[in-house]
Amino acid sequence: MPHIALPEGFPGISAGFTYRPETAKPMRELAHVLLHDANSLTPGERELIAAYVSSQNNCHFCQASHAAAASCHLGNASVVEKVKADFHSAPVSDKLKALLAIAGEVRQDGKLVTAADVEAARKLGATDIEIHDTVLIAAAFSMFNRYVDGLGTWQPHDPDMYAQMGQHLAEQGYTAPSIRQPLQPA
Amino acid sequence: MPHIALPEGFPGISAGFTYRPETAKPMRELAHVLLHDANSLTPGERELIAAYVSSQNNCHFCQASHAAAASCHLGNASVVEKVKADFHSAPVSDKLKALLAIAGEVRQDGKLVTAADVEAARKLGATDIEIHDTVLIAAAFSMFNRYVDGLGTWQPHDPDMYAQMGQHLAEQGYTAPSIRQPLQPA
Repeated sequence: MPHIALPEGFPGISAGFTYRPETAKPMRELAHVLLHDANSLTPGERELIAAYVSSQNNCHFCQASHAAAASCHLGNASVVEKVKADFHSAPVSDKLKALLAIAGEVRQDGKLVTAADVEAARKLGATDIEIHDTVLIAAAFSMFNRYVDGLGTWQPHDPDMYAQMGQHLAEQGYTAPSIRQPLQPA
Repeated sequence: MPHIALPEGFPGISAGFTYRPETAKPMRELAHVLLHDANSLTPGERELIAAYVSSQNNCHFCQASHAAAASCHLGNASVVEKVKADFHSAPVSDKLKALLAIAGEVRQDGKLVTAADVEAARKLGATDIEIHDTVLIAAAFSMFNRYVDGLGTWQPHDPDMYAQMGQHLAEQGYTAPSIRQPLQPA
């Protein structure tokens, strides 16, 4: 049960966004730039980073919705599950593995990122802006995850709902209204 | 030394903001709404929460700049130092102490916040929106701190620089250019 009187029927972050539109606006814009706007990292790669960080932070709503968005972009759900389980052995590029390693450090503490980690990513082809955006995606999901969990939001466990949400996010991004109608809590 | 080629002479987050204006815009707007816009929590109280979270996360730039902003709002630097050292014994209201306890939990993991913590804050006069904003300030600084540290930004230790920056933030907020001219790295 949510800790405060959030509007009913809105899952996860959409409850906080509906409750406080003034903070929702910049948070949605940040997610849109980081995950959806044109970038040399594909949207699928960026959603994988978001799903991985959210999974490590054990935020059910965020890991399920961004896993669904990544699956939609990649046309493949098993890659996402493999990245969440152990990205080192997942079928993704070595460059993305190096960026996921940096994201995993930022998730814990930004000070864990070393010059050697960044150099390793660079040698595998990562550009400065890709490294920047990886750091910020991991930092931003350190916020989104804590916001969703810290409010005690309703986080359904219905895979169909996340699949539908993931498709919407993959197609429309993050500044369009994400949930137009409240769902019925199960 | 920064991990990527950030513009020189911009301390802390201002280097990331200058490097990537597309993400700077929503991040600045979020900080402005949370810390500067009209709110039943005073700007000084909200800056104290930001400084406390940043101090617990050991992010030098963020804790020093928001401590300076809080000191400027409160007209008193010792309160900030006492909150950072041990907020339970600091000369702030019991309501703010209950909110700082929630912020400290969110900083670690949003799932640590309990119904009892929220009820305690509510009994001391905290409203739902104050609880919401406390959760989001703690979540947002979990992002800002990781961003500043994860990029390996230049974080000077000059108290005068932070005092000047804190006054600027307290007076102008977060959407005005924070550092118009690059500083000379010491």
